[in-house]
Amino acid sequence: MHAIGVDIGGTKIAAGVVDEKGQILAQTRVSTEPDDASSIDRAIAEVYRELSKDYEIGAVGLAAAGFVSSDRTSVNFAPNIAWRDYPIAARVGELIGTDVPIVVENDANAAGWAEFRFGVGRDASDMLMLTVGTGLGGAIIVGNQLVRGRWGVAAEVGHMRVVPSGHYCGCGHEGCWEQYASGSALVRDARAAAIARPREAAHLLDLVDGKADDINGPLVTMAAQSGDPLSIELLAELGRWIGEGAASVAALLDPELIVIGGGVGAAGDLLVKPAREAYGQALPARGHRPEARIDLAALGNEAGIVGAADLARS
Amino acid sequence: MHAIGVDIGGTKIAAGVVDEKGQILAQTRVSTEPDDASSIDRAIAEVYRELSKDYEIGAVGLAAAGFVSSDRTSVNFAPNIAWRDYPIAARVGELIGTDVPIVVENDANAAGWAEFRFGVGRDASDMLMLTVGTGLGGAIIVGNQLVRGRWGVAAEVGHMRVVPSGHYCGCGHEGCWEQYASGSALVRDARAAAIARPREAAHLLDLVDGKADDINGPLVTMAAQSGDPLSIELLAELGRWIGEGAASVAALLDPELIVIGGGVGAAGDLLVKPAREAYGQALPARGHRPEARIDLAALGNEAGIVGAADLARS
Amino acid sequence: MHAIGVDIGGTKIAAGVVDEKGQILAQTRVSTEPDDASSIDRAIAEVYRELSKDYEIGAVGLAAAGFVSSDRTSVNFAPNIAWRDYPIAARVGELIGTDVPIVVENDANAAGWAEFRFGVGRDASDMLMLTVGTGLGGAIIVGNQLVRGRWGVAAEVGHMRVVPSGHYCGCGHEGCWEQYASGSALVRDARAAAIARPREAAHLLDLVDGKADDINGPLVTMAAQSGDPLSIELLAELGRWIGEGAASVAALLDPELIVIGGGVGAAGDLLVKPAREAYGQALPARGHRPEARIDLAALGNEAGIVGAADLARS
Amino acid sequence: MHAIGVDIGGTKIAAGVVDEKGQILAQTRVSTEPDDASSIDRAIAEVYRELSKDYEIGAVGLAAAGFVSSDRTSVNFAPNIAWRDYPIAARVGELIGTDVPIVVENDANAAGWAEFRFGVGRDASDMLMLTVGTGLGGAIIVGNQLVRGRWGVAAEVGHMRVVPSGHYCGCGHEGCWEQYASGSALVRDARAAAIARPREAAHLLDLVDGKADDINGPLVTMAAQSGDPLSIELLAELGRWIGEGAASVAALLDPELIVIGGGVGAAGDLLVKPAREAYGQALPARGHRPEARIDLAALGNEAGIVGAADLARS
Repeated sequence: MHAIGVDIGGTKIAAGVVDEKGQILAQTRVSTEPDDASSIDRAIAEVYRELSKDYEIGAVGLAAAGFVSSDRTSVNFAPNIAWRDYPIAARVGELIGTDVPIVVENDANAAGWAEFRFGVGRDASDMLMLTVGTGLGGAIIVGNQLVRGRWGVAAEVGHMRVVPSGHYCGCGHEGCWEQYASGSALVRDARAAAIARPREAAHLLDLVDGKADDINGPLVTMAAQSGDPLSIELLAELGRWIGEGAASVAALLDPELIVIGGGVGAAGDLLVKPAREAYGQALPARGHRPEARIDLAALGNEAGIVGAADLARS
Repeated sequence: MHAIGVDIGGTKIAAGVVDEKGQILAQTRVSTEPDDASSIDRAIAEVYRELSKDYEIGAVGLAAAGFVSSDRTSVNFAPNIAWRDYPIAARVGELIGTDVPIVVENDANAAGWAEFRFGVGRDASDMLMLTVGTGLGGAIIVGNQLVRGRWGVAAEVGHMRVVPSGHYCGCGHEGCWEQYASGSALVRDARAAAIARPREAAHLLDLVDGKADDINGPLVTMAAQSGDPLSIELLAELGRWIGEGAASVAALLDPELIVIGGGVGAAGDLLVKPAREAYGQALPARGHRPEARIDLAALGNEAGIVGAADLARS
Repeated sequence: MHAIGVDIGGTKIAAGVVDEKGQILAQTRVSTEPDDASSIDRAIAEVYRELSKDYEIGAVGLAAAGFVSSDRTSVNFAPNIAWRDYPIAARVGELIGTDVPIVVENDANAAGWAEFRFGVGRDASDMLMLTVGTGLGGAIIVGNQLVRGRWGVAAEVGHMRVVPSGHYCGCGHEGCWEQYASGSALVRDARAAAIARPREAAHLLDLVDGKADDINGPLVTMAAQSGDPLSIELLAELGRWIGEGAASVAALLDPELIVIGGGVGAAGDLLVKPAREAYGQALPARGHRPEARIDLAALGNEAGIVGAADLARS
Repeated sequence: MHAIGVDIGGTKIAAGVVDEKGQILAQTRVSTEPDDASSIDRAIAEVYRELSKDYEIGAVGLAAAGFVSSDRTSVNFAPNIAWRDYPIAARVGELIGTDVPIVVENDANAAGWAEFRFGVGRDASDMLMLTVGTGLGGAIIVGNQLVRGRWGVAAEVGHMRVVPSGHYCGCGHEGCWEQYASGSALVRDARAAAIARPREAAHLLDLVDGKADDINGPLVTMAAQSGDPLSIELLAELGRWIGEGAASVAALLDPELIVIGGGVGAAGDLLVKPAREAYGQALPARGHRPEARIDLAALGNEAGIVGAADLARS
């Protein structure tokens, strides 16, 4: 059965027709207004009509950046889009006017599910997906099932606390994992190094004409790949926090695979190797248990579309 | 169908016939030698014969304090019993000589499962069990399923790290949750207070004739219940660590219920209220999501028997 | 002997004639440009001329917000004023044209010295001054001597690290004391509470029409004084960090008096009592040693003038 | 003037005649009973008589492992010797029967003072001494003066808190620096690694026939010197904690020299290099200030004798 997956971002939606092997057969995208929930509904209906012209569609999956209700029909809360207890499946259903099932999923869950079904996790049964981008998102697969939690809010991995009295987080708490294991953390650490360790930061600062505020994640990655010792150290530190946090998750869930996705994954081995090393050193009962693999995500930006479509089918 | 549940401790095994409602119909117990795995096998066979005389038994569940293989036939490693990759189900099967299915489960998982099926969690679908005894054990239920992990080692909740560079743990790591949220932590903190805050500890010290090393958990609980401010503070601190750690687990799993069992649970509200308060304050996205209940376990010491029997049936 | 004390701020200088009892006999103030070091020199010369008309002046003390050279003639670095290895004493001396000795001191040291000589510390020999304002500054008196350090940079108390991997600090490091024990910390914590604990923060939010970004320190203090539980808790938490950090300093220096000055001191007992309690609980070897008093500063904004004048005399 | 320095240990006292250049001209030692304070007095009198036969003695300095009164006449408290508010100078004076001045000093202060006057610190004015042995002791010199504090209890550097909720300390608190920067910390970390990282610990375990409890500090140092990567890492970690803690002290005191003494100093560059690197990275306002040297102590076990004698003279 073919399904449509829709990845709803703040300013645009991307959608595609996805077959049962996770292949995208057709794709489209539309601009939207984050402050106008009904405009998003209409945009989804529009892409549905466009994509369903040439394909028979059995289900529609919507990947939304927010807290999704456990019955997968509504978005209860979203930080960046004007959804508050919003019955998006019903609204889109009215606009579409067919009885094809419409299912909402959290976007990170959708992407993680795609990775699990069709990507690097396709042979795994228990998997932790970590999406290391601006923040730290994720998805959890336990016994081949996506963990949604009682109220659909599971896998907010970035808000596991890793340092008491640690860095402030936008969520109002301190010491959240995402403040240590994300692209934002990398950038802040690089800028802090420019102040506290100007000599070591000289190369990075050269790249931004001395303006520390212009340092960003891709720049640090690039500098690391060209051999800059401080940038290599910063990525290793980021990898260390990923690995150590993942070891805490492993104490709870005993996964066989930990997948690192998101923009920071572009750093490749400079990130993954330190993550693996830290994971091994921090894993409880190491030596008395098999050890999970840590691998980079195999799918790209379309993972949300693919996962939403696949989850809608099942 | 009736099943036998066997709870295997270091020095004795307790067993019972359990019906489908979780009732124990008959019960027995035998002494064993932790250093002699085959003597444990024989003891299990013995209780099986005794209990199966009067009941028709459809399954046998063994609750073992160790790492259980994911196919539920063997104990891969146990800290206190001489099991190393030990095929206990097969060994016991040979001794019993029938083809009744024999299934091994981790003992904390078994106890948690009993609580989930027949205790305070019987109406829940997603639950975190915390067994706060000498250490901190637990069980995790996700979507009505017990989480065993890929290799059977899930729910080692006590080894989630909560303080980087924190207290040493017997597992060789630092900052494990169980070093902050267990009876041992309570006792160590009480003894430390006797040194660092002798005035506030005067009442506790009186109870042990000034010998700080004689302070134990039940004593602190008793003193707290009789109004001793330091003991109340120590239990509240323990509750705080339980609640804050549980909030980290909730970031991952979004449970609807957190159950506090184990000996320290005897402190009741002196422990649970601070745990609830800390949980609420530390919960990510509070106010945008429902909040899990935190309750004391309803079942007693037989939970392991009941849970092992029930898991063997399914 | 009378001396002139000059407190040099970013946008204005305040100066006064100070007698040997620490009394200000005459006072004046002038606006300045932080980006123009020589304009500051001229302004100092101007206030000198004005104040020295009616008094015989034996010394001039300059209190500067920066790193002062150990020979007390220059400012080596200042975060907010255009001084880099700037021989301010010589420059001002040329403009004044007399041979009255001119001495530079760090402004926090000057204020602490005034408190030591004429304020709450006048009977003490070993004192720690903590100036809890936007940041956390301070001064250290050991054996009746101001501790300047080998290169004049001592008493940067706010940058003692209290939490590894803790809050980012503007200095480029993590976990500096001033990120936990300052007015800025209070404000950030209040704003974070508005996000993470909206119910408890309702009163504070009412005071700012729901705009969490408008919460400031005096508001929290006012709310606490009128009984708001969250504000009381926030000040107590701030006091706790002050007390615990001070206990670490006491491990090194064994002071008899810890003085809390700066704007946050306005909270009075709401701040000082928790600080005292935390100090006592965290003090090493408590019970085997006398315990330092913790008191509010007695002098006001003129402390810098008074201290600079007095230090210049000696 | 010649002076006698006496270093009083739990089971023996060592004493010597010291000239004004810090040279020991004659030396002796006697066994004592830690539980019998008066036997210690008599032993001191005995060594005094022996050493004063051939030298004219102008002063006697006693180095005591305890809290010394600020008038330097008594020991107020000692963890390992039966002194409680004990007027040791008067008692010894009665036994000696002359009016040569007798002065008590804390033993770590005495050793640090010797290093300052005659050792690696002889050209310094502001120095931090760290004695890294079983515990972490120290001495602080500010402006050429030994810092004794208001009540004689200064320089308990090992009890500065470096990790909130960190390792338990024998003092009853958590997270004391000495739990991270001492020989005991090194040994505990090595034993923990033997559990958590058995593969990397294989070489260390070989050296103790697999008995992790037999691992000690000199063994780790020896293994590190022969190239064992884990041992090198453990010493580097220890050095890191020394350096980072020292940077916190430097925020307060701005020393020009940090001296590492004690048994662990035998590790040499394997310890000192990581300490220097960590110090530099953690130093506040690095780049805007000169940076203290970190060097190994130059004097050996006689430092206590030499320092006590020299302090008694002044």
